[in-house]
Amino acid sequence: MPFQIVLGPAVRKSPFFNNTVADGVSKFAVYNKMFLPISYSDPAAEYRRLIEGVAMWDVAAQRQVEIKGADAERLVRYLTPRDLKDCVIGKGLYVPLCDHEGRLINDPVLLPLAADQFWLSIADSDVLLWVRAVAAEGGFDVRISEPDVSPLAVQGPKAEAVVCDLLGDWVKELKYFWFRATALDGIPLVVARSGWSKQGGFELYLCDDTKGPELWDRVKKAGAVYGIGPGAPNYIERVESGLLSYGTDTEADTTPFEVGLGKLIGLDRSDDFIGKQPLIREAQTGPAHQLVGITFDGDPVKPNQHPWPVCIDGASVGTARIVCHSPRRGGNIGLALLKTQYAAIGTALEIEGEGGRHKGIVVPQPLVPPGTPLAQAN
Amino acid sequence: MPFQIVLGPAVRKSPFFNNTVADGVSKFAVYNKMFLPISYSDPAAEYRRLIEGVAMWDVAAQRQVEIKGADAERLVRYLTPRDLKDCVIGKGLYVPLCDHEGRLINDPVLLPLAADQFWLSIADSDVLLWVRAVAAEGGFDVRISEPDVSPLAVQGPKAEAVVCDLLGDWVKELKYFWFRATALDGIPLVVARSGWSKQGGFELYLCDDTKGPELWDRVKKAGAVYGIGPGAPNYIERVESGLLSYGTDTEADTTPFEVGLGKLIGLDRSDDFIGKQPLIREAQTGPAHQLVGITFDGDPVKPNQHPWPVCIDGASVGTARIVCHSPRRGGNIGLALLKTQYAAIGTALEIEGEGGRHKGIVVPQPLVPPGTPLAQAN
Repeated sequence: MPFQIVLGPAVRKSPFFNNTVADGVSKFAVYNKMFLPISYSDPAAEYRRLIEGVAMWDVAAQRQVEIKGADAERLVRYLTPRDLKDCVIGKGLYVPLCDHEGRLINDPVLLPLAADQFWLSIADSDVLLWVRAVAAEGGFDVRISEPDVSPLAVQGPKAEAVVCDLLGDWVKELKYFWFRATALDGIPLVVARSGWSKQGGFELYLCDDTKGPELWDRVKKAGAVYGIGPGAPNYIERVESGLLSYGTDTEADTTPFEVGLGKLIGLDRSDDFIGKQPLIREAQTGPAHQLVGITFDGDPVKPNQHPWPVCIDGASVGTARIVCHSPRRGGNIGLALLKTQYAAIGTALEIEGEGGRHKGIVVPQPLVPPGTPLAQAN
Repeated sequence: MPFQIVLGPAVRKSPFFNNTVADGVSKFAVYNKMFLPISYSDPAAEYRRLIEGVAMWDVAAQRQVEIKGADAERLVRYLTPRDLKDCVIGKGLYVPLCDHEGRLINDPVLLPLAADQFWLSIADSDVLLWVRAVAAEGGFDVRISEPDVSPLAVQGPKAEAVVCDLLGDWVKELKYFWFRATALDGIPLVVARSGWSKQGGFELYLCDDTKGPELWDRVKKAGAVYGIGPGAPNYIERVESGLLSYGTDTEADTTPFEVGLGKLIGLDRSDDFIGKQPLIREAQTGPAHQLVGITFDGDPVKPNQHPWPVCIDGASVGTARIVCHSPRRGGNIGLALLKTQYAAIGTALEIEGEGGRHKGIVVPQPLVPPGTPLAQAN
C-alpha cells in the first residue's frame, strides 16, 4: 500500500534536499514540518552501511531552538527536570523536557554554546512555541529563535575516519557528546561527536543553509574511499540499541519514568523546574507503564504502520510501539509500552500484528549488545 | 518525482483511514501529526464535485483542544486577540492566535460548548502544548486536553441536502458557523455549518473514534443519490475563494495584519491578551508584508513544492506561497506574501517558478467571486 507524500509549501525542504533526491531518496517522513528522508530503496544496504561502514544522513529536520540572553541559563534550568550541575560550554547534554504535568514533550540534546547561548536540538514537537510561551509568561530576559542550523549526520564505525579526512585529526580528541565550532573552507559548522545510533559518529551542524549542497558533496567525496552512502535514522539499529524515539515510543501522556529516563530527573534539586511536583509524586508511586524490549515469533515483520495492541489472556496490557526484524539478533524484536504490572522480564504476550497474531515475551535491553557484528550469513 | 510517505507509528491514522483507503486515497499530507488525505488520483473530478455537487473529506487531522473549568472563558479571552464580546454558546468564531510577539501561530475556530467548556478546532501547529504552558504559568484553573473528536466535512452546493437526509431538516435552520450536538443512531456528533471552502457545507465532529467507519458509510450512503464522492481540502478552490491556510500562506514571523486578519484584532479591548502591545504597535506602523492575490502567465501550473521567489527588476520582494491553475478563472493564480510597498493592485511581478519564470500581476481578491460556475468547456 504505497501512498505518495505531498510535496508542498507547508513543509520545508532541507538544504540537502536536492542532494538526497539525486542520491535516490525514495521515502520521506515529515518531522518538525520538514521532509526527513527515511529510505533510499535498499534497507538492507542502508543497515549494513551503518553497522559495518559509514552512512550520511540528512537530519536537518532535527531543528535547533536557540535561547540567548541574560536569563538564558536560568530559563534552560527551569525548562528541564535534569540537574545541569555538570553543564559546561562545549559539552552536549541529553535533557528530557516535560510539561507542567510531568508528561514528556521532547527529548533534545542541549548544546551550551556560551554562558548566555544555548541550543536545544529537538525531536518532533513544537518546542519553539512552548519555550516562547514559558519565557514570556515568566518574564525571562531572553531571545528565542530557530537559527539557520541543519545537522548532517555521519554514522557508523568508519565515520571517524571520514570526518578526520574532512576536518583534520583534531576531531579524534572530541569526546562523546562534546562539540566545537569550526569551518570547512568557509562552510560554518558546529561538529559534535553524537548521533542517533550506537555505531559511533558525528553530527555536522551546518550553520548556513545556502552551503548545504557543498557540504553534502564534500562529505560524500571524503567518504568515498570508505564506501560511504546515503542513509537515514535507522529504525532497526535504534530498536536493537535501545535508543528512545520521542513520538513513536511515547504516547501523549507518557512520562520520563515510563521510558527509562528516570535517572535524569533531578528529584533532589532545590530550585524549581517545570513539572517538578508531578514528577516527585510519580517517583514515589512508581510509573504506570514501562517501555520494554520484546521478541516475538513469526516470519520477519515489516515496519509497523501503527502501534500494535498487546494482550495477556485477551485483555489489553499496552501497545508495541515499534517492531522490526533484527538481522543481528536473528528474529523479530520491538519496544512495547506496557502497564507496569505486566512489564517484568519473561512475561508472555499476545501481539496483534497487522499480518496476524504473534506470541511474544518481555526481554532485557539492549536487544542487541553494542559491538555485535552482522553475521556473514545475513 | 513521486515519493512515498512513511506509514509509521509516529503519525496517527484517522478513524476514517481505512475508509479513505478503500475509496482510493492516493496521496497524504501530515497535519497535526496525523495522516490527512489530499488526493484520490482524480483532481479534476474532486474539484468538480466540490463546485457543482458534494464531497466528503476526512479532516480528522483538524484536532480539537478542549479548555474546560472555572477559568476556561477567561483563558480563552487571554489566548486570542479577537474581542469575544459576541461569543455565545452554540456559535463558532474564527479566532486568530498570536504568540507574545504578535506572530500568528494558528487560526482555529472556537466552539463554545458551554459556559466553562470550549474547543479550539485547530490548524497545523501544537496549540495543545502552547495553551498548557500559558495556562500553567498563568495559574488558570482549567483542564486542557485533546478530546476524542474527529471532523468529517461534507462540502459543496448539495451538502445541505445530504446532511438533511442524514440528520433531519433541522439542519437547514443552522446558521453559518453555528453548531449543535446530536446523535445519529448512537453515533455522537457535533454538527456545524462550516468547512474550509466557500461552496457551503457542514462539518460532522465525530465524538467517538470507534464509530468512524460507520459514520463514513452512513454519509456515503446518504450522499449516493447526490453523487457524493471522496475529496479533500481543495487547494484550488481555497485560493480562488481567498481562504487562508496557516503554515502555507504564512511564514514563521507572519502577523495577522499581514494576512488580512487585522479586522479581528481587538485593538480597543481594555483587558489583556497575548501579543497585545506588539499588535497595537503594528497597527500604528502598518504591516511589513501583505498577502495578495496574483495572476501569472504560462501553461497551467502544477502544485508548487515550495514557495516561489517573487522579484521586481531582479530584486526579491517576497514569495508566492501557493500557485495553481484555476479552471473557473481560466488561468494561473496564487497568493503571494509581498513587502507592503510592492503589494498594490496592478504591480507587475517576476515569479521564479519550478518550471521557469512567469510574468505576474497583483490583482484583487477573491480571485474567483463566490457562486462562479464551472464553465461547460472545462
